[in-house]
Amino acid sequence: MKRVFLDHNATTFPSKDVVKAITDFKDWGNPSSIHSSGRRARSKILQAKREIAKILGVSPGELSFTSGGSESNNSVIRGLVNRLISKGSTHIISSRSEHPSVYKTLTHIQESFPDIKVHYCPIDYKKGLDYNFLEETLKNNPVGLVSLMAANNETGEIYDIKKIRFLIEKHTLKSRRTYLHSDMVQTLGKMPFDIKDLGVDFASFSAHKFYALQGVGVLYHKKGSGFEPLITGGGQERGRRAGTENLMAIHAMGLQFNALKNLDSKLKEIESLRDYMETKIKSSIDRVMILASDRKRLCNTSLILIDSAHGETLLMNLDLMGFDVSTGAACSSGNPEPSPVLRALGLSLKEASESLRVSLGWSTTKEDIDSFVEHLVKVVEKIRSI
Amino acid sequence: MKRVFLDHNATTFPSKDVVKAITDFKDWGNPSSIHSSGRRARSKILQAKREIAKILGVSPGELSFTSGGSESNNSVIRGLVNRLISKGSTHIISSRSEHPSVYKTLTHIQESFPDIKVHYCPIDYKKGLDYNFLEETLKNNPVGLVSLMAANNETGEIYDIKKIRFLIEKHTLKSRRTYLHSDMVQTLGKMPFDIKDLGVDFASFSAHKFYALQGVGVLYHKKGSGFEPLITGGGQERGRRAGTENLMAIHAMGLQFNALKNLDSKLKEIESLRDYMETKIKSSIDRVMILASDRKRLCNTSLILIDSAHGETLLMNLDLMGFDVSTGAACSSGNPEPSPVLRALGLSLKEASESLRVSLGWSTTKEDIDSFVEHLVKVVEKIRSI
Repeated sequence: MKRVFLDHNATTFPSKDVVKAITDFKDWGNPSSIHSSGRRARSKILQAKREIAKILGVSPGELSFTSGGSESNNSVIRGLVNRLISKGSTHIISSRSEHPSVYKTLTHIQESFPDIKVHYCPIDYKKGLDYNFLEETLKNNPVGLVSLMAANNETGEIYDIKKIRFLIEKHTLKSRRTYLHSDMVQTLGKMPFDIKDLGVDFASFSAHKFYALQGVGVLYHKKGSGFEPLITGGGQERGRRAGTENLMAIHAMGLQFNALKNLDSKLKEIESLRDYMETKIKSSIDRVMILASDRKRLCNTSLILIDSAHGETLLMNLDLMGFDVSTGAACSSGNPEPSPVLRALGLSLKEASESLRVSLGWSTTKEDIDSFVEHLVKVVEKIRSI
Repeated sequence: MKRVFLDHNATTFPSKDVVKAITDFKDWGNPSSIHSSGRRARSKILQAKREIAKILGVSPGELSFTSGGSESNNSVIRGLVNRLISKGSTHIISSRSEHPSVYKTLTHIQESFPDIKVHYCPIDYKKGLDYNFLEETLKNNPVGLVSLMAANNETGEIYDIKKIRFLIEKHTLKSRRTYLHSDMVQTLGKMPFDIKDLGVDFASFSAHKFYALQGVGVLYHKKGSGFEPLITGGGQERGRRAGTENLMAIHAMGLQFNALKNLDSKLKEIESLRDYMETKIKSSIDRVMILASDRKRLCNTSLILIDSAHGETLLMNLDLMGFDVSTGAACSSGNPEPSPVLRALGLSLKEASESLRVSLGWSTTKEDIDSFVEHLVKVVEKIRSI
């Protein structure tokens, strides 16, 4: 049975280029060694950094390699705390629907540093991000950091980072610096963006979310945006991140970034396929709702609420039929509570438990979608009939 | 020209098993997903953990996967600080010849937490670790953490961790807990050890130092030895380390741990070869000294001081002839100062700048060593004649 993977917001499978890069890889030196093996290894790292910088339109010195999205997010938030406190800019704006590596890290920081105050910007699934709340909070408090994701991993909704930067500029005193960090893990390969135009100071990326390897990521830090390193030790990444570099994975990620060029028609194709799927589902199953479908979304993501069909039951049934999808109804850890992200978006317990996330990938076909919808219709009928 | 790699303390090349594991790898799921792809990925992680735990003689729950040695070391030291302060056990014992991810991390911690006091145990290259200093410090101060490496990466000297545990037990009040952490990155594949017998609470390991991949490591945390996570977010590693796991590298590391079984004859072979090399060097070159050669050392490591032959010049000449070795005379970052580790061991500036580190690997042959010594003799003659 051919399996159909429709959970690309959780992870992706490495591209052919990445698999080839792994198979062919030979330069296993330590990039910190000064002999030939070391220099060959180092040149691979520098090459990857130059490639990625070029595609992101930034300077290579503005990038550091990390072990992934969670480390990137932790690095920025934890690495700024002492600076915020010393400058008296102790207020942080974020949201409760951020990835746990942002949201839980802020919770930890609030516990350890009572001076820090976090404001959670409401993001309702019906109304989107509350820019008025953001503006009022910026106006009335010494905000040192705004950390808001560029696109939501569950609903796919895209937030207006450029507008957030504009509001920061409008309401921040000239004498104060307010950093803007964005977890952009869900953007690569799913939407076009211009990092300089967005105006972020920091942005987090992860390789395994766009057809490269797990265990590696990139952190963008705009020139002049200093932070204390999370991992100290050797002088790697100019002192920003100690530890021998994950060379092969960095090399593979560098190659894969090239696949982000000229992606526009691909993204349109995926969006058409996603819209086709949604139309088909709405016409075949009654009492369904697709979240944020009237707002800007990632081209590949559908968060579908299916009344009277428990998400986890749907997932398990579809799994047996060969389809990998996700649900906010269950936590990976076996936690019976629905995804806190969905609850934070304003869904009721019942709604959150009846959610199904379908996230398409670069290789998803019309046949995959037809087959998926066909099986989904059957499963929903079966569940509702019990 | 066949290159001869004699810098195995810096990194190793993946074994055939590891290369095959990479080439064959297919289970690219997200281990946190609950569908089939996710469960297959998760089972790979659990399998690797069970294998490693069995070989280390510990329980799988006592291991967490990290991005490598530096992250493991940072996790323990940074993760204990708040606990030490809250218990009033604010004194830490370590040494200035620790890896930078221990030594520099302690320096950072002293700057950020004025309550913390670090005592640096002298480790002289002539006399070894000063156990009397250790004992006196334990006797007279509320020590909450001792962090000392099991084997020195430069000289290969092996320190008596079991004795350190004994001294801790002897001088620590029953009411106080003194954690023992050891950076054991240099031990795997170079010396036998029994982690339970050593009595450590925490031990750091890195995969790329023993023929597995860069970007992954293991942290041993004895049952009941809690610490605050360095990277927070998702519930991976039971909350000890957030972030999607570096699945393929973890799988490959698990396989490679099996190669540590029945290694005794291999280690004896390497030691004979190392001793053969040292005898040959001493009989062919005058005014050489081999550090710590009268004490317990890793079977593969020689730190050689060669009078009137600058280490970096030696390294560059040997590099051109096809040999990769290391020198404490130069820092990877282009820092002109000799290795702080060698200075901390009591070497003069001149001595440290005239050092050469040769570290053999599992595949080093007698022919490699004969060829290396032959070229070394020529290079030293050439340099001394200028």
